[in-house]
Amino acid sequence: MVVRAAVAGASGYAGGELLRLLLAHPQVEIGALTGNSNAGQAFGSLQPHLGPLAGRTLEATTAEVLAGHDVVFLALPHGQSAAVAAELGPDVLVVDMGADHRLKDPADWDAFYGAPHAGTWPYGLPELPGGRAALEGSKRVAVPGCFPTAVSLALFPAYAARLAEPEAVIVAATGTSGAGKALKTHLLGSEVMGSASPYGVGGVHRHTPEMVQNLSPVAGQRVSVSFTPVLAPMSRGILATCSAKALPGTTAEALRAAYEKAYADEPFVRLLPEGQWPATASVLGSNTVQVQVALDTAAQRIVAISAVDNLAKGTAGAAVQSMNIALGLPETLGLPLTGTAP
Amino acid sequence: MVVRAAVAGASGYAGGELLRLLLAHPQVEIGALTGNSNAGQAFGSLQPHLGPLAGRTLEATTAEVLAGHDVVFLALPHGQSAAVAAELGPDVLVVDMGADHRLKDPADWDAFYGAPHAGTWPYGLPELPGGRAALEGSKRVAVPGCFPTAVSLALFPAYAARLAEPEAVIVAATGTSGAGKALKTHLLGSEVMGSASPYGVGGVHRHTPEMVQNLSPVAGQRVSVSFTPVLAPMSRGILATCSAKALPGTTAEALRAAYEKAYADEPFVRLLPEGQWPATASVLGSNTVQVQVALDTAAQRIVAISAVDNLAKGTAGAAVQSMNIALGLPETLGLPLTGTAP
Amino acid sequence: MVVRAAVAGASGYAGGELLRLLLAHPQVEIGALTGNSNAGQAFGSLQPHLGPLAGRTLEATTAEVLAGHDVVFLALPHGQSAAVAAELGPDVLVVDMGADHRLKDPADWDAFYGAPHAGTWPYGLPELPGGRAALEGSKRVAVPGCFPTAVSLALFPAYAARLAEPEAVIVAATGTSGAGKALKTHLLGSEVMGSASPYGVGGVHRHTPEMVQNLSPVAGQRVSVSFTPVLAPMSRGILATCSAKALPGTTAEALRAAYEKAYADEPFVRLLPEGQWPATASVLGSNTVQVQVALDTAAQRIVAISAVDNLAKGTAGAAVQSMNIALGLPETLGLPLTGTAP
Amino acid sequence: MVVRAAVAGASGYAGGELLRLLLAHPQVEIGALTGNSNAGQAFGSLQPHLGPLAGRTLEATTAEVLAGHDVVFLALPHGQSAAVAAELGPDVLVVDMGADHRLKDPADWDAFYGAPHAGTWPYGLPELPGGRAALEGSKRVAVPGCFPTAVSLALFPAYAARLAEPEAVIVAATGTSGAGKALKTHLLGSEVMGSASPYGVGGVHRHTPEMVQNLSPVAGQRVSVSFTPVLAPMSRGILATCSAKALPGTTAEALRAAYEKAYADEPFVRLLPEGQWPATASVLGSNTVQVQVALDTAAQRIVAISAVDNLAKGTAGAAVQSMNIALGLPETLGLPLTGTAP
Repeated sequence: MVVRAAVAGASGYAGGELLRLLLAHPQVEIGALTGNSNAGQAFGSLQPHLGPLAGRTLEATTAEVLAGHDVVFLALPHGQSAAVAAELGPDVLVVDMGADHRLKDPADWDAFYGAPHAGTWPYGLPELPGGRAALEGSKRVAVPGCFPTAVSLALFPAYAARLAEPEAVIVAATGTSGAGKALKTHLLGSEVMGSASPYGVGGVHRHTPEMVQNLSPVAGQRVSVSFTPVLAPMSRGILATCSAKALPGTTAEALRAAYEKAYADEPFVRLLPEGQWPATASVLGSNTVQVQVALDTAAQRIVAISAVDNLAKGTAGAAVQSMNIALGLPETLGLPLTGTAP
Repeated sequence: MVVRAAVAGASGYAGGELLRLLLAHPQVEIGALTGNSNAGQAFGSLQPHLGPLAGRTLEATTAEVLAGHDVVFLALPHGQSAAVAAELGPDVLVVDMGADHRLKDPADWDAFYGAPHAGTWPYGLPELPGGRAALEGSKRVAVPGCFPTAVSLALFPAYAARLAEPEAVIVAATGTSGAGKALKTHLLGSEVMGSASPYGVGGVHRHTPEMVQNLSPVAGQRVSVSFTPVLAPMSRGILATCSAKALPGTTAEALRAAYEKAYADEPFVRLLPEGQWPATASVLGSNTVQVQVALDTAAQRIVAISAVDNLAKGTAGAAVQSMNIALGLPETLGLPLTGTAP
Repeated sequence: MVVRAAVAGASGYAGGELLRLLLAHPQVEIGALTGNSNAGQAFGSLQPHLGPLAGRTLEATTAEVLAGHDVVFLALPHGQSAAVAAELGPDVLVVDMGADHRLKDPADWDAFYGAPHAGTWPYGLPELPGGRAALEGSKRVAVPGCFPTAVSLALFPAYAARLAEPEAVIVAATGTSGAGKALKTHLLGSEVMGSASPYGVGGVHRHTPEMVQNLSPVAGQRVSVSFTPVLAPMSRGILATCSAKALPGTTAEALRAAYEKAYADEPFVRLLPEGQWPATASVLGSNTVQVQVALDTAAQRIVAISAVDNLAKGTAGAAVQSMNIALGLPETLGLPLTGTAP
Repeated sequence: MVVRAAVAGASGYAGGELLRLLLAHPQVEIGALTGNSNAGQAFGSLQPHLGPLAGRTLEATTAEVLAGHDVVFLALPHGQSAAVAAELGPDVLVVDMGADHRLKDPADWDAFYGAPHAGTWPYGLPELPGGRAALEGSKRVAVPGCFPTAVSLALFPAYAARLAEPEAVIVAATGTSGAGKALKTHLLGSEVMGSASPYGVGGVHRHTPEMVQNLSPVAGQRVSVSFTPVLAPMSRGILATCSAKALPGTTAEALRAAYEKAYADEPFVRLLPEGQWPATASVLGSNTVQVQVALDTAAQRIVAISAVDNLAKGTAGAAVQSMNIALGLPETLGLPLTGTAP
């Protein structure tokens, strides 16, 4: 089977990473590459690291250009994907790497985005309980946000095993590519190199309700999330330090067992040996998530830490993994397990 | 008045930063520079950024070499400062930049260092309630750890105003210089660039009891601390993201007022205008701490964030500031208020 | 004497670094801070590292606002400084940190900038032969470009001693702040971190004729310059690797002697001991230039390398140094000799 | 065909990158992983980014352990590979990623390494004229040094077309991984971040004679090389800025044509469109070399610039490419053409 894929938003960071992965996918043929502000430009000047596509030209994002593909990936600003998907019809697999279809509760959407809600699509995090089944055969996929992926995979085993109180505190260091190829002063190299700085502090980051949405069903009750992202001087990577108060009687052994059980059969989650902690460099460019957990007996808190590449498993890798499941291909097909380090 | 100063441990990062500050201090004359493994080497090859001292030679750390100074700064491995101080006599101001004399409870020392406790010295964090008075006229100063400085200044106003529950959760991104000029694989440039990774997770970092010691008296009860340091790809800087559950009835206005009151007259703490957040680059090389605080009403948590330069205000700047107070000099003498950015 | 200084272009990187230096200058009082696109904004949000100026407001750049100062520093886009200077009158010291008044030959200006030439001002590189005298008492100063400073100080002693052929080859690694606070994709942190890339290759960089202009009179003949700048993943710093074929008979001893003679009495140029090479971190934030030179006997080339901070000695430090000379103050007043490292 | 491969020196950076590539190679089965100082340790703690090999244990480097493989890769300190190869016998393909067998002239070896010369093996740079033929069917391969790869591919077309004088000047920015996982102070993250510094200046770097050896036969005369490496704050990547005086009559068109001809059919060398310049981020993790060239008509010099990943095409990628050729496999098998950017 050859899967013919189009990418809308191909000149950005998420689109570029997706194409890097698709080029290595043995059953994908890359079709249309589209964008808006850069339409008409040589693709080799927009994504100089993607040599095999250097001879292509970026086309405008229109229904005509996107037609005739088996799968269309959307890496668009929020609010645009529903209209594009409607034009593509119900038989084309549409994988939305943006935020439009992730949230189930329209009130969350209103509070954090303030635009009409476009509806919910099956959620591309197969490692969550029930996650895989929701994607099989689906023609629509909402790729998770990068932070919710890192946080949900760090914490859900503790909630699934009923070991943690439903108040999670998360601080996540992130590389700058998570903000996209956006011309903003605080994203300039001169500003970010040598500096760590928070943003979206105090419960206002748009990924917060998605974390609540992922963890609450697992916990069997509403989990509150205090989330602080910290911009770190690196291009890629999220290191999510997540903690919650341990329920009385929680032991280190029970905690370890909960994580071992959750990830025994997951190809892309690597629970590290005890004493070894995740590092973002170890997962750079890969679809792997590194996870480790410890019990702080003095503070009575569970501390769970994950490392993901925000562009790979955090976005484009999850998109390909979801496509594989939706199309009935082997889930791991074409996805790198190894990081590019040092 | 000319203050003649010696520095033991002058070839390391803390010693180097101290000398950079002392060179700019209008009343200090730099005397002996000592070390052990590098004794006899040209100082210009050990600290090439300190041009004015390039012609010096590093001497061995002995009582004879350190004698005859008004103040002796110790940047030594832990366990060594008490013996050196004893030899210098009670009339010389000894400023210990190491850990030996920070902790008040010998049980804390035993649990985290495992060696005989050397006794407690006046603590060099004048911004804490009562901190200044303890230093005036003292002949011994224990410089705080870099993380406890960042964390204590971020959180104590909330505890002083009785707004926060006594369970603090802290994640602090730190530059690599905090680990010293130590030849360890995980500190190599190839390993740290492009990577974020935690260490000392789960309540085992040695700075944890010092945070508890600083915050508990202010809170009027024992404060538990969950502390996770994260190594970030930068040479300097600590960004401490600190949170605690807000006590019922806490308002954003009361929170802001508590911080404004605490820092109204502090020359080295800059409470940022609302909406502006600290960045480590903004305090690089300076004795300034940037602080900001917000109330997350959904998660009911106070989030307070501080940025310090671990080598400057976090170590060497605090040493000079404490010296100024101990000797009766103006507290801000010779200390930079501006960061070197970008 | 109190020198009242205004800064036009205070919200950029050069303006910010100038203000950092002026804040530490014992005889300068900082007056008006002006800009255009950001006029009216709180200065603390534009330059958050300059705490002591946080309460100021950026004013519009007008003759009225700039009037009444002893010295006016201009950090403006090229083409604007002549008009501003004319309005200020001949008795005010005007220090232009831009390119407008550096080049002596209008043909060079036409070829590299393509606008009417605004005339030549005394050149702010006192370390060049005759450089100091040209600045004493002057009311106009053209601050050199950052690359010409690094290159001229690396190479002129070899030319002054008639040891090198008049064809210089220069490759200079530079931090991103040299490009200013400009919103361009290639300056984003995501693009520059982890990457080295050249620009302005093949003789087209605008600093090239300035290098020729500096070196030719020293050499007594026209020196051709092949110059390639390389953007490196750091905020600040220039490392200029400069070479030229050695004239027959040149010895390592003669080469060393030429550099020792040139820099014996220069406060801001540090010729390193033999075998030690410059590093940009060693001069970060300082007005110091580190220089080293070697003779490659196999290739018969002189290799001279310098490190400067592009914003400090490369721009703002040279501006203050020139102001000191022009006003008859001690040349080194208020200028840091030490780098901020690590 | 399944190729069973062993790696001696598997815990270092070159060995780790080789294993990353071999894991993606469709016909390679990874056999023994050996080392010396770390023998007996879990491989997952030594190379945490190579998840699929995490369960392995590093074995000691002995002939017994290395026996029974089709190909043995050696990533050993210089001076050790000849003895190991002798024990493996003449029928095993031995690919030496170290320096021992690169140089043809024993005098070069003596001058730069000072040990008995171990003899010359076929040289693993197939893009050089005649390079491919020398590798076909060979049982021994000497992988080129990373700098000679970057420099030779940047310059040889100009020499092949007789456009350049035989005196090349090269300045190459390099990431820190080129120095290996070595515990040296100047390689610490605190030292390298934010800093550019040269080393091996003045004709003493060991890769210099290898460049002369590669370029001279192409030029038809001895080419002298002035080579200066500059350590840049990045983990990976070499950006080689190479120049030589243009022979009289050289035109930009002839220069472009020479490079187009040289690289028309090379799968791993991408001559960029005119006006676009290489960046190391664009080739990170890939076997691709980006090349661009320009004629500086004022200085009469050819400036050719290449970007390579020192660990990939610069070492491990070249090893796999050479293995493919030596074994008669498709040359590009298993080798990534795309960089991992941003």
